[in-house]
Amino acid sequence: MKKIAVVLSGCGVFDGSEIQEAVLSLFFLDRLGVDYQCFAPNKDKAHVVNHLTGEVSEGESRNVLVESARIARGKVIDLSKLKQEGFNGVLFPGGFGAAKNLCTFAFEGDQASIEEEVERVFRDFRKAEKPMGVLCIAPVIAAKVLEAEVTVGEEGDASVALEKMGGKHVVKPVSEIHVDEVNNVITAPAYMYGEASISEVGEGIEKLVCELIDRC
Amino acid sequence: MKKIAVVLSGCGVFDGSEIQEAVLSLFFLDRLGVDYQCFAPNKDKAHVVNHLTGEVSEGESRNVLVESARIARGKVIDLSKLKQEGFNGVLFPGGFGAAKNLCTFAFEGDQASIEEEVERVFRDFRKAEKPMGVLCIAPVIAAKVLEAEVTVGEEGDASVALEKMGGKHVVKPVSEIHVDEVNNVITAPAYMYGEASISEVGEGIEKLVCELIDRC
Repeated sequence: MKKIAVVLSGCGVFDGSEIQEAVLSLFFLDRLGVDYQCFAPNKDKAHVVNHLTGEVSEGESRNVLVESARIARGKVIDLSKLKQEGFNGVLFPGGFGAAKNLCTFAFEGDQASIEEEVERVFRDFRKAEKPMGVLCIAPVIAAKVLEAEVTVGEEGDASVALEKMGGKHVVKPVSEIHVDEVNNVITAPAYMYGEASISEVGEGIEKLVCELIDRC
Repeated sequence: MKKIAVVLSGCGVFDGSEIQEAVLSLFFLDRLGVDYQCFAPNKDKAHVVNHLTGEVSEGESRNVLVESARIARGKVIDLSKLKQEGFNGVLFPGGFGAAKNLCTFAFEGDQASIEEEVERVFRDFRKAEKPMGVLCIAPVIAAKVLEAEVTVGEEGDASVALEKMGGKHVVKPVSEIHVDEVNNVITAPAYMYGEASISEVGEGIEKLVCELIDRC
């Protein structure tokens, strides 16, 4: 049975994993008969955002691993324990958590640094030539670490920045994917199209999951 | 275009809406071309549970409406604003939030009281003869308010209690639904089968959503 590591970054689009992207990723993996295990870094979130108002909740702190457990029904493991040997591939859902907790892209743009364990995971799977599925804004990490060719949807601040970081950008609509054959990285824009519907986003994620598993 | 009200109860299976059930509900609604609007009560959660350890986080409080916004990408409205006139039907995902924040079932069993606005919504949709989809543990509310015939999966503490509350229980497997024709209430066990896979749960939710929309 194939097994995929899913790397979460908290719970909620504005300060963690985009919940809908994360759940649909798990759903399509499971429906294909693929086993999965969720991981997340054991660190405080960069900040907590009130998702009703969009404002930062000053003075509040939440842990990325603990909050990610909400999506995974408790079954999530510290990212430092993720070894590529136990998995056929890895999948990174998006959300601002990918740009705030897995790297500093949301705060520092093309000057972003990558969380150490996240960079290690990308390098380990690359070295093992195992496929990586990367959604939404998370492809900026693949651009920085692997100089990968990725999509984050349309041209814009994120695509300009990721090219400065060493990556190459390809425009794709919400329900399509892009494959970097050299790095074995599959990307899909998902909620980079902020007004897209959940089924449009789901269509892109389903294609990404199918391509990821085909390559395992 | 048909429109469904989705009533959330926070964000996370142990103290709020079961996230996977909520997201899959939205996904299947949207894929059928149905519009939806999320609602949640504007009140503090009964308590906050650390989803990694399963323990209550003493001294921490979170608002049900604010946390529900994480699932709905910010687009959630105070439940007191939900009027049946604007909708063709209503859908309640499950999770302990339904039994802790929408009623007191998790703490008081068959002696549970129902949150005032939640009871009003059930009565309003019933009076208007509009269909109601109810997942997981949430059917205990339909049992109490409408004396509905529902499923919460297998026989157990919940099924015994809901019969004491005036309802009738029907055993169903994880991927099946039950229809109460008198009350126009459709129920599915979902994660009442705690060890079920997300695709098994999704299969039941897809059937429930299809039946709900057929009845609109």
